[in-house]
Amino acid sequence: MRSPDELRELAESYLGELALTPELHGQAESVRYALTMGGKRVRPVISLATAEAAGVEAERALPAAASVELVHNFSLVHDDLPALDNDEVRRGNPSVWARHGEAVAILAGDALLAEALRLALSYPTPAVARELTQATLGMIGGQYLDVTGTAPDEQTLHRLKTGCLFAASVALPLWVAEIPEREQGPWRAFGDELGLLFQIVDDILDADGYVLTHGADGARRLADEAAERAQARLEAIPADTSVLAEIVAGLAARTS
Amino acid sequence: MRSPDELRELAESYLGELALTPELHGQAESVRYALTMGGKRVRPVISLATAEAAGVEAERALPAAASVELVHNFSLVHDDLPALDNDEVRRGNPSVWARHGEAVAILAGDALLAEALRLALSYPTPAVARELTQATLGMIGGQYLDVTGTAPDEQTLHRLKTGCLFAASVALPLWVAEIPEREQGPWRAFGDELGLLFQIVDDILDADGYVLTHGADGARRLADEAAERAQARLEAIPADTSVLAEIVAGLAARTS
Repeated sequence: MRSPDELRELAESYLGELALTPELHGQAESVRYALTMGGKRVRPVISLATAEAAGVEAERALPAAASVELVHNFSLVHDDLPALDNDEVRRGNPSVWARHGEAVAILAGDALLAEALRLALSYPTPAVARELTQATLGMIGGQYLDVTGTAPDEQTLHRLKTGCLFAASVALPLWVAEIPEREQGPWRAFGDELGLLFQIVDDILDADGYVLTHGADGARRLADEAAERAQARLEAIPADTSVLAEIVAGLAARTS
Repeated sequence: MRSPDELRELAESYLGELALTPELHGQAESVRYALTMGGKRVRPVISLATAEAAGVEAERALPAAASVELVHNFSLVHDDLPALDNDEVRRGNPSVWARHGEAVAILAGDALLAEALRLALSYPTPAVARELTQATLGMIGGQYLDVTGTAPDEQTLHRLKTGCLFAASVALPLWVAEIPEREQGPWRAFGDELGLLFQIVDDILDADGYVLTHGADGARRLADEAAERAQARLEAIPADTSVLAEIVAGLAARTS
């Protein structure tokens, strides 16, 4: 079992060397820029740790893990556009549209989504790509609710906008590991807790969202409860989930 | 064997009744708007006719046929955006961004692509979705070359921007019909001719592109040659391709 840091390096090196479709021509430059702007690779690390806990080498889960990161990056590239969040800066660098222009940034997001599906479709079973597609549709629904301010409640918004992709980070490697669907329940219950934990801690770090609605102490309590639920879910899984437990503790305690 | 008009009605009714992913919430409205703005459904009709020529009921190929149309619609929705072609009108109606705003239109394109993949993934084999994904990546590459004016030549531009999706319209139903890859050659050779034919006739109708580079008579001659090549390719296919021949003749002679 490799540590979260080792898995992060594995994901980083795979993403850095990822061969893009040659037919993208010059579009590949902005796609690669989006992909290598950094980030903590939280989702692929979860996927790789899940794969190892489920009994397959992390290497086999790399395309699946990368596909989740590409969908995440696609959502960031489109989110940053002037018509949406209008963010010129992402992680200290010009956002894709600020660097490459709006037209190329729109196409870069499109290409990231299609490349993600290409990676998910590299497995013999279509289940990996099906899971990723459903998660993507949920995420897009969440972005719509956010952009238009029409979410019925905070929970629905975050379950879709953040939760779907975290849940997919756990679910995709289960198909890679050929865990039968009837045995996926405990793993999926774990995956369902991760998005909320991530979102609340994000809001604490940004003094936003949950902090505005529940206060700083209230948000901290909600984060700790989400982490406890995630750890309890892990204990119900009949496998060595120690690295996943370490990841949960890291998500709860993160300061950036 | 059903006529092109009967197949068009079949595709139209399937697209009109298509159940969208519930998690899209209100985003579904703009997706449906994009889908029902009309159009001649050229690509799905080709898919359905190919399916019938290849020996399966058109109904079985409906999800594949619709997936190609959704990818086509995704590309139109993003192409019309202010940062790209800045078109406020599409087929006599407000384009998606003019009607629903830029942010929702960007997400509508994203959702159309993801829904297309969902349809392509409804088959037991991942080959349908793989083929669609590769075509989509080629199309995005073509849009990049067009938007940035960096195409090495006219042929490369159109092969990617238009040709990939026409070729996929023929290739997808081959997988649905379980035609083994080694027997797909003649069908694919036919599919490769369609995009160019469609593009040249489009340019003749718009007095654009090939008309500017080859003159009106030159463009007409190129169109007729493309149609002849497509018909010759059809004759090499060991199946009843009479409806596909009718479609080629219709594409060459179309006046709108």
